[in-house]
Amino acid sequence: MKTYREPRVAIVGATGAVGTTMLAILEDRGFPLTDLRLISSARSAGRVIDTKWGSVEVEDLASADARDVDIVLFSAGGARSLAHAPRFVSCGATVIDNSSAFRMEDSVPLVVAQVNDDAIFDHAGIVANPNCTTMVAMMAVAPLHKVAGMRTLIATTYQSVSGSGQTGMAQLASEFDHFAGNIEGLICGRWEEPEGDLYARPIAYNVVPLAGSLTATGYTDEELKLVNETRKILGRDDIAVEPTCVRVPVMVGHGIAASMWFDRPVDLDEAVAVLGSAPGTQLWDDTKVPTPIDSAGIDDVLIGRLRETVGHRGGISLFVVGDNLRKGAALNAVQLAELLVE
Amino acid sequence: MKTYREPRVAIVGATGAVGTTMLAILEDRGFPLTDLRLISSARSAGRVIDTKWGSVEVEDLASADARDVDIVLFSAGGARSLAHAPRFVSCGATVIDNSSAFRMEDSVPLVVAQVNDDAIFDHAGIVANPNCTTMVAMMAVAPLHKVAGMRTLIATTYQSVSGSGQTGMAQLASEFDHFAGNIEGLICGRWEEPEGDLYARPIAYNVVPLAGSLTATGYTDEELKLVNETRKILGRDDIAVEPTCVRVPVMVGHGIAASMWFDRPVDLDEAVAVLGSAPGTQLWDDTKVPTPIDSAGIDDVLIGRLRETVGHRGGISLFVVGDNLRKGAALNAVQLAELLVE
Repeated sequence: MKTYREPRVAIVGATGAVGTTMLAILEDRGFPLTDLRLISSARSAGRVIDTKWGSVEVEDLASADARDVDIVLFSAGGARSLAHAPRFVSCGATVIDNSSAFRMEDSVPLVVAQVNDDAIFDHAGIVANPNCTTMVAMMAVAPLHKVAGMRTLIATTYQSVSGSGQTGMAQLASEFDHFAGNIEGLICGRWEEPEGDLYARPIAYNVVPLAGSLTATGYTDEELKLVNETRKILGRDDIAVEPTCVRVPVMVGHGIAASMWFDRPVDLDEAVAVLGSAPGTQLWDDTKVPTPIDSAGIDDVLIGRLRETVGHRGGISLFVVGDNLRKGAALNAVQLAELLVE
Repeated sequence: MKTYREPRVAIVGATGAVGTTMLAILEDRGFPLTDLRLISSARSAGRVIDTKWGSVEVEDLASADARDVDIVLFSAGGARSLAHAPRFVSCGATVIDNSSAFRMEDSVPLVVAQVNDDAIFDHAGIVANPNCTTMVAMMAVAPLHKVAGMRTLIATTYQSVSGSGQTGMAQLASEFDHFAGNIEGLICGRWEEPEGDLYARPIAYNVVPLAGSLTATGYTDEELKLVNETRKILGRDDIAVEPTCVRVPVMVGHGIAASMWFDRPVDLDEAVAVLGSAPGTQLWDDTKVPTPIDSAGIDDVLIGRLRETVGHRGGISLFVVGDNLRKGAALNAVQLAELLVE
């Protein structure tokens, strides 16, 4: 168990949507770092970014020195993590990786801060940050699982475009411009395809029931992450997870409609008691409806629409929403880094 | 069983989002009517509307003569249906009612055209058009139920604002204007509430996991419609339905993510065979993702993302989307009227 007193920190992917949020969160939380490096692809290298710890010139990942850093927050996509995270690990650093590259490896703990913190200390250099949707879902699901043992999770998502990074937000903005003059056409089905193939179908004024890439199973990789990561985080291989991942025209904030059944019936009173004291969350009663834009820019995950299942009895249904750039990615990564600080 | 050869038809709520679509569909399909009356609230009365059957002056529902009409298509809200539909019935007309006012009454058949047509003939003057979300869902669900007996339906919705009529579309448009200058604020959580309380929370750049009005059960009336209407249409009271109804910033087109389990396992091949020949639908393979804007303005309901359940095995998951103003409301009402024509 390696911990640090005043670590030297690097952010890889520092100019991306998650990376910039990582920096802001390190600053906001007064992270006790003694040296900060910002690393990105060649395209952004050379930019100078003002930080709480002084101006920092962005380094090119391809040539960045992997020595003299303790904690590296990686959010530059799976391919870059695969290629470069091991370099930093072999030089002695601990990598907290936001990509899916290492998540399912046995030697890599998959940790949601405030859910399974203890898992982090059994690592071999790399700690994985879960998928943004899984992360938000776990904040509401795990507390109930801990008391009653979850058997079944039906999870249907409402995922914002920032889950695809700045590219996603730019695509949504450009499609809104594309459709702006022809709202009537959207009503009667006479419209022209916008440019761009980031999503399988247009995303403005629409929802796209295909988030991630389709696999031979008929499920997307994003959906299978929800299945596999849920099981790994909760430490139970036999949880039946039925996922549907849908992209929606929202900038920031991932929502999940979840229905859960457990080893024993759970009633509303118990669910309220459990989720009312769950860390990192706010449980909203029926007078307040949690939505993506309510979750944007805050650390807490919001839980609402809590109710006993009306179909097969004994279960709990709810809606949970969280800032996918913060708790869904950057905040959790920083929280994991904090666990590594003495 | 009362049928008509060349009926005299009235549309009540003729100037609303559904009513105008009803008129367009009657025209498009060459409905064999001999007289057309357009009826609305006092606010729209007196307007003259050009139709295929000549110019028609809109009558005020409060004072409209209930005689001399055979089929009345009602889409003016539950309160107006309750107050006025019986007047037309007592004068001998058959009312096809798009509101929820009469749907669960034993004497009122609840009919999805091409699903349970035969039910229509056992009426006492009123035939109910199902809820728009239920209707779209049933087009994909009922064919599978017929072959394998559905036990469990988990239905999570993506409902467009036109489900709230023209008011909903106006609200969405005005909120997009409100947020237009402050997209950055939506990302970091600094924004001002738009005007209007049609929905519980802002709907532009957002999703609102509360469609309909909350009941003491913790479910909305919209969600309970999905439970109760599904059971009535499919003729099986013990189907466990778990609904979550969510409003999304889409103009037209309701989507439903559905997972279903049956009396026996259903595999993908069987589901493809059944849904590939289901009337009124298009089954899209994995190369095409059906979305709300693809469904807007067309009669067919689109089914895609068809797959075997990955959680509890033996079930089928899919995404279905349909034009809520057409198949979800006006088209089905006209199809029911056609069943009443000899």
